[in-house]
Amino acid sequence: MLGKLITFEGGDGVGKSTQIQLLAQYCKAKGIEYIITREPGGGKISEEIRKILLNKDDDACINDCEALLIAAARVQHVHDIILPSLQANKMVLCDRYVHSTFAYQGYGRGIDLAFLKAINMPAMEKVMPAVTFLLSMHPRDAFARKNKAFVFDRIEQAGSAFHERVYNGYLKLAEDDDKIITIDATLPISSIHASIVARLKI
Amino acid sequence: MLGKLITFEGGDGVGKSTQIQLLAQYCKAKGIEYIITREPGGGKISEEIRKILLNKDDDACINDCEALLIAAARVQHVHDIILPSLQANKMVLCDRYVHSTFAYQGYGRGIDLAFLKAINMPAMEKVMPAVTFLLSMHPRDAFARKNKAFVFDRIEQAGSAFHERVYNGYLKLAEDDDKIITIDATLPISSIHASIVARLKI
Repeated sequence: MLGKLITFEGGDGVGKSTQIQLLAQYCKAKGIEYIITREPGGGKISEEIRKILLNKDDDACINDCEALLIAAARVQHVHDIILPSLQANKMVLCDRYVHSTFAYQGYGRGIDLAFLKAINMPAMEKVMPAVTFLLSMHPRDAFARKNKAFVFDRIEQAGSAFHERVYNGYLKLAEDDDKIITIDATLPISSIHASIVARLKI
Repeated sequence: MLGKLITFEGGDGVGKSTQIQLLAQYCKAKGIEYIITREPGGGKISEEIRKILLNKDDDACINDCEALLIAAARVQHVHDIILPSLQANKMVLCDRYVHSTFAYQGYGRGIDLAFLKAINMPAMEKVMPAVTFLLSMHPRDAFARKNKAFVFDRIEQAGSAFHERVYNGYLKLAEDDDKIITIDATLPISSIHASIVARLKI
Protein backbone atom coordinates (compact mmCIF):
# COMPACT_ATOMS: atom_id res chain seq x y z
CA MET A 1 0.00 0.00 0.00
CA LEU A 2 3.02 2.34 -0.13
CA GLY A 3 2.51 5.00 -2.78
CA LYS A 4 -1.25 4.35 -2.69
CA LEU A 5 -4.21 6.51 -1.84
CA ILE A 6 -6.57 5.06 0.77
CA THR A 7 -9.76 6.98 1.42
CA PHE A 8 -12.28 6.88 4.26
CA GLU A 9 -15.90 7.62 3.53
CA GLY A 10 -19.21 7.69 5.33
CA GLY A 11 -21.65 10.08 6.97
CA ASP A 12 -20.80 12.51 9.75
CA GLY A 13 -20.05 10.85 13.09
CA VAL A 14 -19.42 7.30 11.83
CA GLY A 15 -15.85 7.19 13.18
CA LYS A 16 -13.65 7.98 10.17
CA SER A 17 -11.18 10.14 12.13
CA THR A 18 -10.87 7.52 14.89
CA GLN A 19 -10.08 4.77 12.38
CA ILE A 20 -7.59 6.95 10.52
CA GLN A 21 -5.79 7.71 13.81
CA LEU A 22 -5.72 4.02 14.78
CA LEU A 23 -4.39 3.05 11.37
CA ALA A 24 -1.76 5.78 11.61
CA GLN A 25 -0.61 4.44 15.01
CA TYR A 26 -0.43 0.96 13.50
CA CYS A 27 1.65 2.24 10.56
CA LYS A 28 3.97 4.16 12.88
CA ALA A 29 4.57 1.04 14.98
CA LYS A 30 5.30 -0.97 11.83
CA GLY A 31 7.55 1.71 10.30
CA ILE A 32 5.20 2.24 7.34
CA GLU A 33 5.50 5.79 5.97
CA TYR A 34 2.15 7.55 5.76
CA ILE A 35 0.48 10.93 5.79
CA ILE A 36 -2.99 11.90 6.98
CA THR A 37 -4.99 14.46 5.04
CA ARG A 38 -8.61 15.45 4.58
CA GLU A 39 -11.14 16.96 2.21
CA PRO A 40 -12.31 19.54 1.62
CA GLY A 41 -8.97 21.07 2.56
CA GLY A 42 -5.50 19.63 2.92
CA GLY A 43 -3.35 22.48 1.61
CA LYS A 44 -3.15 26.26 2.02
CA ILE A 45 -5.51 27.23 -0.80
CA SER A 46 -7.79 24.22 -0.25
CA GLU A 47 -8.16 25.08 3.45
CA GLU A 48 -9.12 28.67 2.48
CA ILE A 49 -11.81 27.18 0.24
CA ARG A 50 -12.91 24.89 3.10
CA LYS A 51 -13.53 27.97 5.26
CA ILE A 52 -15.94 29.38 2.68
CA LEU A 53 -17.68 25.99 2.38
CA LEU A 54 -18.23 25.29 6.06
CA ASN A 55 -18.98 28.83 7.25
CA LYS A 56 -22.38 28.66 8.94
CA ASP A 57 -23.11 32.29 8.02
CA ASP A 58 -22.88 31.50 4.31
CA ASP A 59 -26.14 29.60 4.16
CA ALA A 60 -26.81 31.21 0.80
CA CYS A 61 -24.04 29.17 -0.90
CA ILE A 62 -26.06 27.43 -3.65
CA ASN A 63 -25.58 23.75 -4.52
CA ASP A 64 -23.70 24.27 -7.79
CA CYS A 65 -21.32 26.74 -6.14
CA GLU A 66 -20.68 24.26 -3.31
CA ALA A 67 -19.93 21.43 -5.76
CA LEU A 68 -17.55 23.61 -7.81
CA LEU A 69 -15.73 24.88 -4.70
CA ILE A 70 -15.22 21.31 -3.48
CA ALA A 71 -13.91 20.27 -6.91
CA ALA A 72 -11.53 23.27 -6.91
CA ALA A 73 -10.24 22.43 -3.42
CA ARG A 74 -9.84 18.77 -4.48
CA VAL A 75 -7.74 19.29 -7.59
CA GLN A 76 -5.48 21.69 -5.68
CA HIS A 77 -5.21 19.19 -2.80
CA VAL A 78 -4.26 16.41 -5.21
CA HIS A 79 -1.57 18.65 -6.70
CA ASP A 80 -0.21 20.09 -3.43
CA ILE A 81 -0.42 17.12 -1.05
CA ILE A 82 -1.62 13.78 -2.45
CA LEU A 83 0.54 13.39 -5.57
CA PRO A 84 3.82 14.55 -3.95
CA SER A 85 3.19 12.12 -1.04
CA LEU A 86 2.43 9.22 -3.37
CA GLN A 87 5.55 10.04 -5.37
CA ALA A 88 7.52 9.94 -2.11
CA ASN A 89 6.14 6.40 -1.73
CA LYS A 90 4.03 7.20 1.31
CA MET A 91 0.67 5.68 2.10
CA VAL A 92 -1.87 8.53 1.91
CA LEU A 93 -4.78 8.25 4.35
CA CYS A 94 -7.44 10.70 3.22
CA ASP A 95 -10.60 11.59 5.15
CA ARG A 96 -13.12 11.93 2.25
CA TYR A 97 -12.49 12.15 -1.50
CA VAL A 98 -14.66 11.98 -4.64
CA HIS A 99 -17.15 9.50 -3.19
CA SER A 100 -18.16 12.18 -0.68
CA THR A 101 -19.04 14.42 -3.61
CA PHE A 102 -21.17 11.75 -5.26
CA ALA A 103 -22.90 10.91 -1.95
CA TYR A 104 -23.38 14.44 -0.54
CA GLN A 105 -23.69 16.68 -3.59
CA GLY A 106 -25.09 13.98 -5.89
CA TYR A 107 -27.48 11.79 -3.88
CA GLY A 108 -27.84 14.31 -1.02
CA ARG A 109 -28.30 17.62 -2.86
CA GLY A 110 -29.64 16.10 -6.07
CA ILE A 111 -26.95 17.44 -8.43
CA ASP A 112 -26.56 15.41 -11.64
CA LEU A 113 -23.82 12.77 -11.18
CA ALA A 114 -22.54 13.30 -14.74
CA PHE A 115 -21.96 17.01 -13.97
CA LEU A 116 -20.15 16.08 -10.74
CA LYS A 117 -17.93 13.64 -12.63
CA ALA A 118 -17.18 16.29 -15.28
CA ILE A 119 -16.11 18.93 -12.78
CA ASN A 120 -13.99 16.41 -10.83
CA MET A 121 -12.32 14.89 -13.91
CA PRO A 122 -9.02 16.81 -13.52
CA ALA A 123 -8.59 15.34 -9.99
CA MET A 124 -9.89 11.87 -10.90
CA GLU A 125 -7.56 11.64 -13.90
CA LYS A 126 -4.62 12.40 -11.61
CA VAL A 127 -5.46 9.86 -8.89
CA MET A 128 -8.16 7.48 -7.70
CA PRO A 129 -8.06 5.53 -4.41
CA ALA A 130 -6.56 2.04 -4.37
CA VAL A 131 -9.05 1.20 -1.62
CA THR A 132 -11.97 3.12 -0.10
CA PHE A 133 -13.32 2.17 3.32
CA LEU A 134 -16.98 3.06 3.68
CA LEU A 135 -17.90 3.21 7.36
CA SER A 136 -21.60 2.66 7.15
CA MET A 137 -24.06 3.63 9.87
CA HIS A 138 -27.58 5.01 9.66
CA PRO A 139 -27.41 8.80 10.30
CA ARG A 140 -29.91 8.45 13.17
CA ASP A 141 -27.33 6.33 15.04
CA ALA A 142 -24.34 8.40 13.95
CA PHE A 143 -25.79 11.69 15.14
CA ALA A 144 -26.92 10.11 18.43
CA ARG A 145 -23.27 9.28 19.14
CA LYS A 146 -22.11 12.86 18.63
CA ASN A 147 -21.47 14.98 21.68
CA LYS A 148 -24.58 16.95 22.57
CA ALA A 149 -22.48 20.11 22.71
CA PHE A 150 -21.33 19.51 19.15
CA VAL A 151 -21.64 22.57 16.94
CA PHE A 152 -23.01 21.49 13.57
CA ASP A 153 -21.46 23.08 10.50
CA ARG A 154 -23.48 24.15 7.46
CA ILE A 155 -23.48 20.77 5.71
CA GLU A 156 -24.21 18.83 8.89
CA GLN A 157 -27.21 21.07 9.53
CA ALA A 158 -28.89 20.04 6.29
CA GLY A 159 -31.50 17.82 7.92
CA SER A 160 -32.21 14.16 8.47
CA ALA A 161 -33.81 13.48 5.05
CA PHE A 162 -30.64 14.81 3.41
CA HIS A 163 -28.41 12.57 5.55
CA GLU A 164 -30.59 9.57 4.80
CA ARG A 165 -30.15 10.21 1.05
CA VAL A 166 -26.38 10.47 1.59
CA TYR A 167 -26.38 7.17 3.53
CA ASN A 168 -28.33 5.35 0.81
CA GLY A 169 -26.21 7.01 -1.89
CA TYR A 170 -23.03 5.63 -0.35
CA LEU A 171 -24.54 2.12 -0.34
CA LYS A 172 -25.41 2.47 -4.05
CA LEU A 173 -21.89 3.64 -4.86
CA ALA A 174 -20.43 0.63 -2.99
CA GLU A 175 -22.67 -1.79 -4.92
CA ASP A 176 -21.13 -0.71 -8.22
CA ASP A 177 -17.47 -0.47 -7.18
CA ASP A 178 -15.48 -3.36 -5.74
CA LYS A 179 -12.75 -0.97 -4.55
CA ILE A 180 -15.21 0.31 -1.94
CA ILE A 181 -15.11 -1.90 1.16
CA THR A 182 -18.24 -1.40 3.26
CA ILE A 183 -17.75 -1.85 7.01
CA ASP A 184 -20.53 -1.86 9.59
CA ALA A 185 -19.60 1.19 11.66
CA THR A 186 -21.73 0.10 14.62
CA LEU A 187 -19.18 -2.66 15.35
CA PRO A 188 -16.61 -2.09 18.12
CA ILE A 189 -13.80 0.30 17.15
CA SER A 190 -11.15 -2.42 17.54
CA SER A 191 -13.05 -4.81 15.22
CA ILE A 192 -13.34 -2.14 12.53
CA HIS A 193 -9.62 -1.39 12.85
CA ALA A 194 -8.80 -5.10 12.54
CA SER A 195 -10.91 -5.36 9.36
CA ILE A 196 -9.11 -2.39 7.83
CA VAL A 197 -5.64 -3.76 8.60
CA ALA A 198 -6.64 -7.20 7.30
CA ARG A 199 -7.95 -5.76 4.05
CA LEU A 200 -4.81 -3.68 3.50
CA LYS A 201 -2.58 -6.72 4.20
CA ILE A 202 -0.06 -4.50 6.00
CA MET B 1 -32.23 46.59 -22.66
CA LEU B 2 -34.10 46.62 -19.33
CA GLY B 3 -33.98 43.17 -17.74
CA LYS B 4 -30.96 42.31 -19.91
CA LEU B 5 -27.39 41.36 -19.10
CA ILE B 6 -24.74 43.44 -20.86
CA THR B 7 -21.14 42.34 -20.41
CA PHE B 8 -17.83 44.09 -21.01
CA GLU B 9 -14.84 42.05 -22.05
CA GLY B 10 -11.24 42.57 -23.03
CA GLY B 11 -7.72 42.41 -21.67
CA ASP B 12 -6.49 44.26 -18.60
CA GLY B 13 -6.21 48.03 -19.06
CA VAL B 14 -8.41 48.39 -22.16
CA GLY B 15 -10.89 50.71 -20.45
CA LYS B 16 -13.80 48.47 -19.43
CA SER B 17 -14.37 50.22 -16.08
CA THR B 18 -14.28 53.66 -17.70
CA GLN B 19 -16.89 52.67 -20.27
CA ILE B 20 -19.11 51.05 -17.65
CA GLN B 21 -18.98 54.24 -15.57
CA LEU B 22 -19.80 56.42 -18.60
CA LEU B 23 -22.69 54.17 -19.56
CA ALA B 24 -23.96 54.24 -15.97
CA GLN B 25 -23.90 58.09 -15.98
CA TYR B 26 -25.79 58.03 -19.27
CA CYS B 27 -28.40 55.64 -17.82
CA LYS B 28 -28.76 57.74 -14.69
CA ALA B 29 -29.36 60.88 -16.75
CA LYS B 30 -31.96 59.06 -18.85
CA GLY B 31 -33.66 57.45 -15.83
CA ILE B 32 -32.79 53.93 -16.96
CA GLU B 33 -32.50 51.55 -13.99
CA TYR B 34 -29.22 49.68 -13.92
CA ILE B 35 -26.71 47.99 -11.65
CA ILE B 36 -22.96 47.62 -12.05
CA THR B 37 -21.29 44.37 -11.05
CA ARG B 38 -18.11 42.47 -11.82
CA GLU B 39 -16.50 39.05 -12.06
CA PRO B 40 -14.96 37.24 -10.40
CA GLY B 41 -16.91 38.58 -7.42
CA GLY B 42 -20.14 40.52 -7.15
CA GLY B 43 -21.63 39.00 -3.98
CA LYS B 44 -20.45 38.11 -0.49
CA ILE B 45 -19.34 34.52 -1.22
CA SER B 46 -18.12 35.37 -4.72
CA GLU B 47 -15.96 38.20 -3.37
CA GLU B 48 -14.44 35.78 -0.83
CA ILE B 49 -13.58 33.48 -3.75
CA ARG B 50 -12.14 36.48 -5.64
CA LYS B 51 -9.72 37.10 -2.76
CA ILE B 52 -8.35 33.57 -3.08
CA LEU B 53 -8.04 33.97 -6.86
CA LEU B 54 -6.22 37.29 -6.97
CA ASN B 55 -3.97 36.86 -3.94
CA LYS B 56 -0.44 37.35 -5.19
CA ASP B 57 0.96 35.02 -2.53
CA ASP B 58 -1.08 32.10 -3.87
CA ASP B 59 1.00 31.64 -7.00
CA ALA B 60 0.65 27.89 -6.54
CA CYS B 61 -3.07 27.95 -7.47
CA ILE B 62 -3.09 25.51 -10.41
CA ASN B 63 -5.01 26.19 -13.62
CA ASP B 64 -7.85 23.71 -13.03
CA CYS B 65 -8.39 25.04 -9.50
CA GLU B 66 -8.49 28.62 -10.82
CA ALA B 67 -11.06 27.71 -13.50
CA LEU B 68 -13.27 25.87 -10.98
CA LEU B 69 -13.09 28.73 -8.46
CA ILE B 70 -14.11 31.23 -11.13
CA ALA B 71 -17.02 28.98 -12.18
CA ALA B 72 -18.10 28.66 -8.52
CA ALA B 73 -17.97 32.44 -8.00
CA ARG B 74 -19.90 32.94 -11.25
CA VAL B 75 -22.84 30.66 -10.53
CA GLN B 76 -23.21 32.20 -7.07
CA HIS B 77 -22.97 35.72 -8.56
CA VAL B 78 -25.69 34.87 -11.09
CA HIS B 79 -27.90 33.60 -8.27
CA ASP B 80 -27.19 36.41 -5.77
CA ILE B 81 -26.94 39.50 -7.99
CA ILE B 82 -27.57 39.06 -11.71
CA LEU B 83 -30.87 37.13 -11.77
CA PRO B 84 -32.58 39.18 -9.02
CA SER B 85 -31.56 42.41 -10.83
CA LEU B 86 -32.83 41.14 -14.18
CA GLN B 87 -36.07 40.05 -12.54
CA ALA B 88 -36.37 43.58 -11.10
CA ASN B 89 -36.15 44.75 -14.74
CA LYS B 90 -32.82 46.48 -14.32
CA MET B 91 -30.11 46.65 -16.94
CA VAL B 92 -27.14 44.69 -15.56
CA LEU B 93 -23.71 46.02 -16.56
CA CYS B 94 -21.17 43.33 -15.77
CA ASP B 95 -17.39 43.72 -15.95
CA ARG B 96 -16.38 40.26 -17.33
CA TYR B 97 -18.45 37.07 -17.61
CA VAL B 98 -18.02 33.68 -19.32
CA HIS B 99 -16.06 35.06 -22.28
CA SER B 100 -13.29 36.02 -19.85
CA THR B 101 -13.09 32.36 -18.85
CA PHE B 102 -12.83 31.19 -22.45
CA ALA B 103 -10.22 33.86 -23.26
CA TYR B 104 -8.09 33.71 -20.08
CA GLN B 105 -8.43 30.11 -18.84
CA GLY B 106 -9.08 28.61 -22.29
CA TYR B 107 -6.89 30.40 -24.84
CA GLY B 108 -4.57 31.92 -22.19
CA ARG B 109 -3.92 28.99 -19.85
CA GLY B 110 -4.64 26.28 -22.42
CA ILE B 111 -7.50 24.55 -20.57
CA ASP B 112 -9.83 22.57 -22.82
CA LEU B 113 -12.78 24.77 -23.88
CA ALA B 114 -15.23 21.84 -23.59
CA PHE B 115 -14.25 21.39 -19.92
CA LEU B 116 -14.67 25.13 -19.31
CA LYS B 117 -18.13 25.03 -20.89
CA ALA B 118 -19.07 21.99 -18.78
CA ILE B 119 -18.08 23.61 -15.49
CA ASN B 120 -19.84 26.87 -16.41
CA MET B 121 -23.03 25.21 -17.65
CA PRO B 122 -25.07 25.93 -14.47
CA ALA B 123 -24.39 29.68 -14.85
CA MET B 124 -24.77 29.71 -18.66
CA GLU B 125 -28.09 27.87 -18.47
CA LYS B 126 -29.36 30.55 -16.07
CA VAL B 127 -28.29 33.57 -18.12
CA MET B 128 -26.25 34.62 -21.13
CA PRO B 129 -25.53 38.24 -22.12
CA ALA B 130 -27.90 39.98 -24.54
CA VAL B 131 -24.87 41.93 -25.80
CA THR B 132 -21.14 41.68 -25.05
CA PHE B 133 -18.85 44.60 -25.78
CA LEU B 134 -15.30 43.44 -26.49
CA LEU B 135 -12.90 46.36 -26.02
CA SER B 136 -10.02 45.20 -28.13
CA MET B 137 -6.47 46.48 -27.78
CA HIS B 138 -3.14 44.72 -28.13
CA PRO B 139 -1.82 43.99 -24.58
CA ARG B 140 1.41 45.87 -25.40
CA ASP B 141 -0.64 49.07 -25.78
CA ALA B 142 -3.00 48.31 -22.90
CA PHE B 143 -0.22 47.76 -20.37
CA ALA B 144 1.64 50.86 -21.59
CA ARG B 145 -1.42 52.93 -20.63
CA LYS B 146 -1.51 51.59 -17.09
CA ASN B 147 -0.11 53.73 -14.32
CA LYS B 148 3.54 52.89 -13.72
CA ALA B 149 2.79 52.53 -10.01
CA PHE B 150 0.12 49.92 -10.80
CA VAL B 151 0.43 46.79 -8.67
CA PHE B 152 -0.17 43.77 -10.86
CA ASP B 153 -2.30 40.97 -9.43
CA ARG B 154 -1.55 37.29 -9.94
CA ILE B 155 -3.35 36.93 -13.28
CA GLU B 156 -1.98 40.20 -14.67
CA GLN B 157 1.55 39.02 -13.84
CA ALA B 158 1.26 36.00 -16.12
CA GLY B 159 3.46 37.43 -18.86
CA SER B 160 3.15 38.97 -22.29
CA ALA B 161 2.83 35.70 -24.25
CA PHE B 162 -0.15 34.79 -22.06
CA HIS B 163 -1.82 38.16 -22.64
CA GLU B 164 -1.24 37.88 -26.39
CA ARG B 165 -3.02 34.48 -26.39
CA VAL B 166 -5.89 36.04 -24.43
CA TYR B 167 -6.11 38.91 -26.94
CA ASN B 168 -6.19 36.55 -29.92
CA GLY B 169 -8.62 34.25 -28.09
CA TYR B 170 -11.09 37.10 -27.65
CA LEU B 171 -10.91 37.88 -31.38
CA LYS B 172 -11.64 34.21 -32.19
CA LEU B 173 -14.60 34.18 -29.82
CA ALA B 174 -15.98 37.35 -31.46
CA GLU B 175 -15.66 35.81 -34.95
CA ASP B 176 -18.05 33.00 -34.00
CA ASP B 177 -20.63 34.98 -32.02
CA ASP B 178 -22.61 37.90 -33.41
CA LYS B 179 -23.67 38.95 -29.90
CA ILE B 180 -20.07 40.02 -29.28
CA ILE B 181 -19.52 43.57 -30.57
CA THR B 182 -15.82 44.26 -31.05
CA ILE B 183 -14.77 47.88 -30.49
CA ASP B 184 -11.31 49.29 -31.16
CA ALA B 185 -10.26 50.32 -27.65
CA THR B 186 -7.51 52.65 -28.94
CA LEU B 187 -10.23 55.08 -30.13
CA PRO B 188 -11.06 58.11 -27.98
CA ILE B 189 -13.11 57.30 -24.87
CA SER B 190 -16.04 59.41 -26.05
CA SER B 191 -16.17 57.64 -29.42
CA ILE B 192 -16.24 54.24 -27.73
CA HIS B 193 -19.02 55.42 -25.42
CA ALA B 194 -21.02 56.73 -28.41
CA SER B 195 -20.67 53.34 -30.18
CA ILE B 196 -21.91 51.51 -27.08
CA VAL B 197 -24.96 53.77 -26.65
CA ALA B 198 -25.75 53.52 -30.37
CA ARG B 199 -25.56 49.74 -30.30
CA LEU B 200 -27.82 49.49 -27.23
CA LYS B 201 -30.37 51.90 -28.80
CA ILE B 202 -31.05 53.49 -25.42
